[in-house]
Amino acid sequence: MIKTGIVGATGYTGSELVRLLYNHPEVDIRIITSESRKGERFSDIHPHFQGLADYELQSADKVPEEDLDAVFLALPHGVSMDYVKKFAGTGLRMIDLSGDFRLSAPDVYESWYGKEHTFPQGFKKAVYGLPELHRDEIRNSRLVANPGCYPTSAILGLAPLVKNNIIIPGQVVVDSKSGVTGAGVKAKPTTHYSNVSDNFKAYGLKRHRHTIEIEEQLSGLSSNGTMQLQFTPHLLPVDRGILSTIYTQPREGVTENQLKALYADFYKTHPFVRLRPEPPALKDVRGSNFCDLFVTYDERTNRIITLAVIDNLVKGAAGQAMQNMNLMFGLEEETGFVAVPLNP
Amino acid sequence: MIKTGIVGATGYTGSELVRLLYNHPEVDIRIITSESRKGERFSDIHPHFQGLADYELQSADKVPEEDLDAVFLALPHGVSMDYVKKFAGTGLRMIDLSGDFRLSAPDVYESWYGKEHTFPQGFKKAVYGLPELHRDEIRNSRLVANPGCYPTSAILGLAPLVKNNIIIPGQVVVDSKSGVTGAGVKAKPTTHYSNVSDNFKAYGLKRHRHTIEIEEQLSGLSSNGTMQLQFTPHLLPVDRGILSTIYTQPREGVTENQLKALYADFYKTHPFVRLRPEPPALKDVRGSNFCDLFVTYDERTNRIITLAVIDNLVKGAAGQAMQNMNLMFGLEEETGFVAVPLNP
Amino acid sequence: MIKTGIVGATGYTGSELVRLLYNHPEVDIRIITSESRKGERFSDIHPHFQGLADYELQSADKVPEEDLDAVFLALPHGVSMDYVKKFAGTGLRMIDLSGDFRLSAPDVYESWYGKEHTFPQGFKKAVYGLPELHRDEIRNSRLVANPGCYPTSAILGLAPLVKNNIIIPGQVVVDSKSGVTGAGVKAKPTTHYSNVSDNFKAYGLKRHRHTIEIEEQLSGLSSNGTMQLQFTPHLLPVDRGILSTIYTQPREGVTENQLKALYADFYKTHPFVRLRPEPPALKDVRGSNFCDLFVTYDERTNRIITLAVIDNLVKGAAGQAMQNMNLMFGLEEETGFVAVPLNP
Amino acid sequence: MIKTGIVGATGYTGSELVRLLYNHPEVDIRIITSESRKGERFSDIHPHFQGLADYELQSADKVPEEDLDAVFLALPHGVSMDYVKKFAGTGLRMIDLSGDFRLSAPDVYESWYGKEHTFPQGFKKAVYGLPELHRDEIRNSRLVANPGCYPTSAILGLAPLVKNNIIIPGQVVVDSKSGVTGAGVKAKPTTHYSNVSDNFKAYGLKRHRHTIEIEEQLSGLSSNGTMQLQFTPHLLPVDRGILSTIYTQPREGVTENQLKALYADFYKTHPFVRLRPEPPALKDVRGSNFCDLFVTYDERTNRIITLAVIDNLVKGAAGQAMQNMNLMFGLEEETGFVAVPLNP
Repeated sequence: MIKTGIVGATGYTGSELVRLLYNHPEVDIRIITSESRKGERFSDIHPHFQGLADYELQSADKVPEEDLDAVFLALPHGVSMDYVKKFAGTGLRMIDLSGDFRLSAPDVYESWYGKEHTFPQGFKKAVYGLPELHRDEIRNSRLVANPGCYPTSAILGLAPLVKNNIIIPGQVVVDSKSGVTGAGVKAKPTTHYSNVSDNFKAYGLKRHRHTIEIEEQLSGLSSNGTMQLQFTPHLLPVDRGILSTIYTQPREGVTENQLKALYADFYKTHPFVRLRPEPPALKDVRGSNFCDLFVTYDERTNRIITLAVIDNLVKGAAGQAMQNMNLMFGLEEETGFVAVPLNP
Repeated sequence: MIKTGIVGATGYTGSELVRLLYNHPEVDIRIITSESRKGERFSDIHPHFQGLADYELQSADKVPEEDLDAVFLALPHGVSMDYVKKFAGTGLRMIDLSGDFRLSAPDVYESWYGKEHTFPQGFKKAVYGLPELHRDEIRNSRLVANPGCYPTSAILGLAPLVKNNIIIPGQVVVDSKSGVTGAGVKAKPTTHYSNVSDNFKAYGLKRHRHTIEIEEQLSGLSSNGTMQLQFTPHLLPVDRGILSTIYTQPREGVTENQLKALYADFYKTHPFVRLRPEPPALKDVRGSNFCDLFVTYDERTNRIITLAVIDNLVKGAAGQAMQNMNLMFGLEEETGFVAVPLNP
Repeated sequence: MIKTGIVGATGYTGSELVRLLYNHPEVDIRIITSESRKGERFSDIHPHFQGLADYELQSADKVPEEDLDAVFLALPHGVSMDYVKKFAGTGLRMIDLSGDFRLSAPDVYESWYGKEHTFPQGFKKAVYGLPELHRDEIRNSRLVANPGCYPTSAILGLAPLVKNNIIIPGQVVVDSKSGVTGAGVKAKPTTHYSNVSDNFKAYGLKRHRHTIEIEEQLSGLSSNGTMQLQFTPHLLPVDRGILSTIYTQPREGVTENQLKALYADFYKTHPFVRLRPEPPALKDVRGSNFCDLFVTYDERTNRIITLAVIDNLVKGAAGQAMQNMNLMFGLEEETGFVAVPLNP
Repeated sequence: MIKTGIVGATGYTGSELVRLLYNHPEVDIRIITSESRKGERFSDIHPHFQGLADYELQSADKVPEEDLDAVFLALPHGVSMDYVKKFAGTGLRMIDLSGDFRLSAPDVYESWYGKEHTFPQGFKKAVYGLPELHRDEIRNSRLVANPGCYPTSAILGLAPLVKNNIIIPGQVVVDSKSGVTGAGVKAKPTTHYSNVSDNFKAYGLKRHRHTIEIEEQLSGLSSNGTMQLQFTPHLLPVDRGILSTIYTQPREGVTENQLKALYADFYKTHPFVRLRPEPPALKDVRGSNFCDLFVTYDERTNRIITLAVIDNLVKGAAGQAMQNMNLMFGLEEETGFVAVPLNP
């Protein structure tokens, strides 16, 4: 059994981790922490867990470093790095769900996140936790930087094209639409029901920090120079799910069948990526760890359109974290994933 | 032209007042106030008004008491009373959209609202602003206490039965369901999108303060003693609208046709109450000042079921306030109401 | 392994059965049928199952009666009875998710369902499949009539009160609110998005056929005569979930603590009923087989209010069916139920 | 008074026409037709009009051609052309809300709509009814082809860039998201509540017929050759509204301020286009005839992003039709438009 702890219990990623780990046959959750709600029960904050997960929340000081195998950090950006630092000297394997170690270097972090990084040493050890790109490194890692939700969809949608040098690097538009849980559990005007319901808008134009995360990962995959992309997130009136509509231009002639074969080949050993014959919808993956992809070629305009759909809380956060944990502990990637998507 | 001011601009009732008064041919909005946002424009806070209502928000200290005819108080309970006190000595006609003067006496207020009332003298002057019950008093009033949203639906649904002494006073259940805007514009956990969307729950069981407002008004209408009722509000995943399902028991034999005739007679001179041949839905009144009613009799169980539907921000707040203003200034009740319900 | 078949694959209950049985360690799905879509794959109709459940749909004629242990009938009312008749002579255990065998006798069925019953003999064998009331009979049954969704919530909410003779039999109001999936998978005006979204209405007043199902079950539990109730269903703009708000009157003095103790005792051996300290919400049970209950007593009005919440497709249909299957085959009731509720 | 008729009353555009014309001071609705529901009342089909618009629906044969000034055709594509033909010889001014006369020629229509055109002569007379581009022609027209909903948003978003020769003609991506009412009033799987709610997907990739409508209009505006664009529509879980996110590339250096000035100049005499300082949301225009635009320049990527928001049933259909009618009859464009957007 993998003895695990979850640091940060009040948010959606903490809640999803417990939902998923609950059914994992090899995991024993030993501690769940919350500084703001310690002493309360996990199910006081998330009442749907009543009778299932009534853990008493504790301070992170109580994490039994010697007697745990793995810790999930479900904390805000900027907070997580302190815990990575704290646990760095122990034998704990860490899966960090924040953005603190996803980028290549501290100065890139500081430039896009607008704050100083307090544990720059962590970048050397951190592996970007997208199994479809970095499975082997993840297996051997002690610190996994779990990818952002938008980047997971965009990178998985683009990777076969970039890796195979199909597209013009500078002609990439990623138009993404996300459910509200991506904005977190905290009540604020942007998540106020009547500001979201029956509504829709773009936000974070030009400088959303997931832009650089996508660009760095794709550039690492490219043999054809730096990838630069136009990324525009939008807020959907739904709870869960991201759909990214990705527009690219082929460097030379290509057919739809070639594209489909190329995607099939790229993902043939990756159980959570499904290639779909028709455009996928958010509910097709809701609650599950799938990333559903659809690719097509428009002869009229000479553009490739790729659609990528995930559940932002699962493949975009807690599910990917559990997938990474499986790899880090030598298990099959699918171990413990039981949920068929919930649709409707 | 009626020179009006609106005190309190940041909430939904303030916004709705401007939406409705904008099309009123006899109204000139002279000032809109906000203490927290003064100096900003009304359309900075409510951007859908850009180009339509770019008023600069001012402190309530700037209300030109001598040069106004009417003032709407769109303020929270407990705050409004201070402004009623402040304006009491002037010639201003006041329409108070809070709950501060809806009940019969200060001690009742204190018992249900849990706070002391700082202007008990106001109760004597205040008229309960439900035109379908108190049209004449409203015409002559200088202070109208605009009814609560739930009470508007419940009282209009029950009034013909109570007035005509049809039902057993103690056997009344009002099961109400409201949209989220009833909880106000402020972001809080109860209005957080993912807590509301695809969800539903009851709240305020047994002691919601609208209970006493409904009971007092109906008792005043009854020749058969005090009305007591079971009132349960629920939170719907919709923006606007209240549907109250009302269960009563007849004192003696009654037929469905008799009931329909009785409702038709009761509301025959009231343009905003529509008697519907089928159960009404929220969207049938959305954005409008209508209260749609449906009544039926169940022979099998000997119960009367009444359905009452309103838009909580219009007939349940700002629309009713404008209807009251029309009466106070000798206009036809419908003056300025142009909007057909927005459906879908 | 329990060799099972599912007759009727295109609707929501068929789809949910596959979702739940997919994770059941003792079940082998051998055949899924559809007359209208035979030859297609199950995942063509429900694409979220791609890669998980790509069964080729077959005609029900192909059900291998000799080589199956159990069959689920996920069919419309009036159709199901023909299959019950067809399989009655075989050794198959049947779980019928339609309303065809839920009532006490053919004439009651005909009176409330408005159609003749073609297999009246079935009523003698059928057991009403609510495990919290009829666990032992279900264990020994070969034909389980799986309860309706509204009745599951109403009966579980009322059973402790009725069984213990707490309430006045004629004073029961059940005001229920259901998500849209209760109306089925077929597109029709009542399920058209813009008729449901941001909307709410009552329907089926006075004569919804679930009324008699609730009354019969409760009357069977009562030592105090026939139960009669006022049942009003409403349509919520949500996918899944039923919340029933139940109003009753005690025969004599009662306290809230007594009520809570009585419910706790009644359900102490029933793993899927959770007694909640606060009013439950739909999402607290979404995707799960839980029925969450809350009970309170209003001293002011001398009424008991009970809230009952289920997922209509799980505890109200497919989950309850799997729970019944577990009982029929000597398994623990919880076997195979892995899903924590999906919230948000 | 303009004596008008509405041919086609059962759909959303028919219903919206009545909502808007109801408040128009110069319009007298003389007849509303429906072949499928003739004899019924308009408010039987659209019950929110009860007491407001109880017209008896008639066959289109009853349209009093001699005694009408204008007729709105709110009919499906392929049906409308027959009525245009029928009324072509009369003095009636026609506003056709279908797609039958929006394109440049019958063969283009046949290629994109996949059906033969039965009144090719109509193309010569028809004026494309986008007042911001063709105000003068509309004033003198007897047949206005009211634009499609997506094209209205896309063309208004792109027109200043195309007209001023700012962008590279082949590098245009229009990623559009629409509410469900765009799919019509008829119940079908794509508009089934549970297929839309909490969901999102792309559809009509590469060959949606609005593509050619946008391309033709923009090409007509361009002094720099044919415009070709990538257009991808998506289905939002909202009732009303379209947001188009438009990506273009400047031919040469440009600044954000230049772009904003250029848009301001282009629309300075057009009352229904609002230039917004921040990205607009659907609800900012809901129920109104506004098109809200936002433009920005991304120096990092050298791309221009334009956001265009409309209510698809108003500026995208019935409102634009009334705006066109105003022009055709010499009225101010804004005449009769009273509704402030309904938000929330």
